[in-house]
Amino acid sequence: LETTATYDPLTEEFVLNSPTLTSMKWWPGTLGHTATHAVVVARLITKGKDEGIHLFIVQLRSLEDHRPLPGIKVGDIGPKFGYFGMDNGFLHMTNVRIPRDQMLMKYAQVSRDGTYSKPPTDKITYGTMVFVRAGIVVQSASILARAVTIAIRYSVVRRQTQNRPGEPETQVLDYQTQQFKLFPLLASAYAMKFASQYMLKLYVGITGEIAEGNLESLPELHATSAGLKALCSEISSNGVELCRLCCGGHGYSAASGLPQLYVDYSPAQTYEGENTVMLLQTARYLLKISRQKVPQAQLPNNVAYLGVDYPKYKESPVLTPKQFNDPHILLEAYRQRVIRLVAVALRRYMNGIDSGLDAVAAWNNSSVDWTVAARAHCHYLVLKAFQSSIDTAEMCETNLSIMRVLCCLFGLFGIMQYSGEFCLDGYMNSDQIEMAKNQLYSLLKEVRYEAVPLVDAFDIHDDILNSCLGRYDGDVYRHLYQWALRAPRNKKEVHDTYEKYLRPLLKKTKSKL
Amino acid sequence: LETTATYDPLTEEFVLNSPTLTSMKWWPGTLGHTATHAVVVARLITKGKDEGIHLFIVQLRSLEDHRPLPGIKVGDIGPKFGYFGMDNGFLHMTNVRIPRDQMLMKYAQVSRDGTYSKPPTDKITYGTMVFVRAGIVVQSASILARAVTIAIRYSVVRRQTQNRPGEPETQVLDYQTQQFKLFPLLASAYAMKFASQYMLKLYVGITGEIAEGNLESLPELHATSAGLKALCSEISSNGVELCRLCCGGHGYSAASGLPQLYVDYSPAQTYEGENTVMLLQTARYLLKISRQKVPQAQLPNNVAYLGVDYPKYKESPVLTPKQFNDPHILLEAYRQRVIRLVAVALRRYMNGIDSGLDAVAAWNNSSVDWTVAARAHCHYLVLKAFQSSIDTAEMCETNLSIMRVLCCLFGLFGIMQYSGEFCLDGYMNSDQIEMAKNQLYSLLKEVRYEAVPLVDAFDIHDDILNSCLGRYDGDVYRHLYQWALRAPRNKKEVHDTYEKYLRPLLKKTKSKL
Repeated sequence: LETTATYDPLTEEFVLNSPTLTSMKWWPGTLGHTATHAVVVARLITKGKDEGIHLFIVQLRSLEDHRPLPGIKVGDIGPKFGYFGMDNGFLHMTNVRIPRDQMLMKYAQVSRDGTYSKPPTDKITYGTMVFVRAGIVVQSASILARAVTIAIRYSVVRRQTQNRPGEPETQVLDYQTQQFKLFPLLASAYAMKFASQYMLKLYVGITGEIAEGNLESLPELHATSAGLKALCSEISSNGVELCRLCCGGHGYSAASGLPQLYVDYSPAQTYEGENTVMLLQTARYLLKISRQKVPQAQLPNNVAYLGVDYPKYKESPVLTPKQFNDPHILLEAYRQRVIRLVAVALRRYMNGIDSGLDAVAAWNNSSVDWTVAARAHCHYLVLKAFQSSIDTAEMCETNLSIMRVLCCLFGLFGIMQYSGEFCLDGYMNSDQIEMAKNQLYSLLKEVRYEAVPLVDAFDIHDDILNSCLGRYDGDVYRHLYQWALRAPRNKKEVHDTYEKYLRPLLKKTKSKL
Repeated sequence: LETTATYDPLTEEFVLNSPTLTSMKWWPGTLGHTATHAVVVARLITKGKDEGIHLFIVQLRSLEDHRPLPGIKVGDIGPKFGYFGMDNGFLHMTNVRIPRDQMLMKYAQVSRDGTYSKPPTDKITYGTMVFVRAGIVVQSASILARAVTIAIRYSVVRRQTQNRPGEPETQVLDYQTQQFKLFPLLASAYAMKFASQYMLKLYVGITGEIAEGNLESLPELHATSAGLKALCSEISSNGVELCRLCCGGHGYSAASGLPQLYVDYSPAQTYEGENTVMLLQTARYLLKISRQKVPQAQLPNNVAYLGVDYPKYKESPVLTPKQFNDPHILLEAYRQRVIRLVAVALRRYMNGIDSGLDAVAAWNNSSVDWTVAARAHCHYLVLKAFQSSIDTAEMCETNLSIMRVLCCLFGLFGIMQYSGEFCLDGYMNSDQIEMAKNQLYSLLKEVRYEAVPLVDAFDIHDDILNSCLGRYDGDVYRHLYQWALRAPRNKKEVHDTYEKYLRPLLKKTKSKL
């Protein structure tokens, strides 16, 4: 961060500067042409000393005529992938002076004479970040629920190939390949709903402790929210795109609602902490725990299974596909996977240290392994949230039973997707992977006739879905046509470009013949 | 296909009709407001008999005033994901009459009295499809090359985190996690360049045979082009998106060039045969070969290793990571993977048949397994094209050696990505997977200082890249700023919306206070 706010005790002002091209602010929403004021992050310099990053309120534009104030250069950063309505802007400052009381001084302070006093802890800013990341987990679930609602509803309307003479063409949801794409996403949407509830509960609990001055659980909250933000936004973004591809050609039409969903939501992978960076934050926490060899009893519930005394089972006890139909069996497999992945990453890290690398280089050398371990840990947390919500839910047996199916489907699909990780160190063998797959295929069939009710249960109104393909009434083609007729280019039967470009071209070509 | 072209011998005309809403043509480019004529696919009905799908030239608009002709309803299908400049249209026809000679009659024919004569083979239309699919393989390579050029060049300009006091911030390409994302894509772009050359050679060879009346190799050409189209467009689309994510926030800016690349290229996964359908076409060919238990000598070169007499090795012979640094070792691992995956899919298919399912149901039940096998076979073909191009290339030893590194990197990354498939039936064990990973990590380091020259070698001009981030001169931030200043919203310091909306709002708020 290169922007500086230098305190001038003579006038009791801060002087803000963007000394370089790379210090320009870039991307903040409404900054370009709308906002009159901004909260600017800058390095505070007082009494010749750099006191690090602080926040300042800076007026950008005149309140009379909205023109940028002297020293301020603001504007639009140009077209983007989605976010079409958002006025993302840039900001460059040259000797912009603001009064001393426009520094946010709830914690850190600068007195009239320029004396600096520190905040009680430098972790104070974590609070908001954690809250926003928890919000991304919630949003991931609801965005994927929308996409999967569209794709599943359309897949029962859309038919492709007359497979048997005399029969109608097959509904595409009857194809195993379509089920294999959509049902794990359906299960993921449910899984993330439960994970969101878990995440919010954890947030409320731990921020309550923090308010009482107990910061002990902050690392756990930070690690969990960072990792779940990364995993859930990844599952959701990739899932929305897969749903779009599942709708064939019409998935590319704005009428499907899916392209807009993708471009508006995909940024969640990058903002509020880029996903790989987030996984590495979680991984730092796993490194600390695994390196210190703490027993389970001294660890927070989330990571207790990474305690030194938790059993590392030699192999999975499963002997038949049906045995995989048990969330507890699946959870144990997920735990054993993480235990092994953390051991692999830790070994690579320690090998680096032992061979003379500094901590930075040893961390970098093992960082891919750490992201894998962190993702697997978060994957486990999502499955665990699903399972424990079921175990404690007050539901009728019918609903409970389909939730159990979805929970196992989510778990089994993860085993397929990351089968190599489950085989690591021999915990599962390739016969067991095959059994897991067989069980997964059986569950696809079970979900087939519950799929539409299961997306209906998300209860997303047509006005929110905004999709001709995903309409509740299934009347896809009529609405697709009506929607197209309203397109701007259809206002005239003959478009203006005909007279301007096409007619001269056609007539000229003709005369040449 | 519901559109009909019914022959009327009295007037010697075809009468075209779109009998239902779902029979409307949808998506053809330039159809909406530009085209005066279209080649329309319709079921030919003559003498009361449905003779199946044929092609007809239909005039859509008047050549005088461009108005749609009677019975023709055409228009724009509305906004889409990318393809902004393309006039994708819909077409509905009611009793549109065209002269008999507007049926394309090179092969199939209808005489004046309505007598139908068949084409010599119904595979005649494959030719164009195969050609276009081969073109997608070529395009996949060049699109990914563009994206990876942008992301790698930007990753040496962009720095993040001062990791050691006194040192500059680290170039993001020095992070292992960034290398692990980008270098396999770099290797994939090269791999697909070689696969494209292979695909075109196969196309030219086999179409030459077909021109001489020898259709024997048509199934091989069809299966290979379908599968490679699917695999390469998938690698490329996902790769472009990953490159975009590797550019952080700026990847979302149109200035990066990456959003446009993604929306323009992603449709290759769907058009000219949806990718899952394409993999299933390849799979049908694998089913035929594996079911018939043909010896290698009787099979085309591509699939000879699936011959019944090809050895199914019990386990990989690799004992050290360095041994994985050999394309031939990797190729054998890829072959053994496919042999096993095909056996799994065939077993599931035959179990279905044996338990009384018809061929349609048995195929559907095993279709996910078949897509996995088909993708793995195509993956093998790409690696093989890479390896054999290297083996026969006339290159200096320096270039050859870096090409060998990329080839192994491509192969090893596939092993990481699909490690479960390589462990299937015990061919590789988890220690060997770990060795493959160690070797891959070593190669990442080797590629680091060749990465920029390797993308420069694609020789893509800045005007084609159209990216502030991917500029050859690396002068990213100045161009990003200059580009933003040219944005339409920056034409005025104060945007028109201020007077219209913002000022009344701000003034009103103020007076309320």
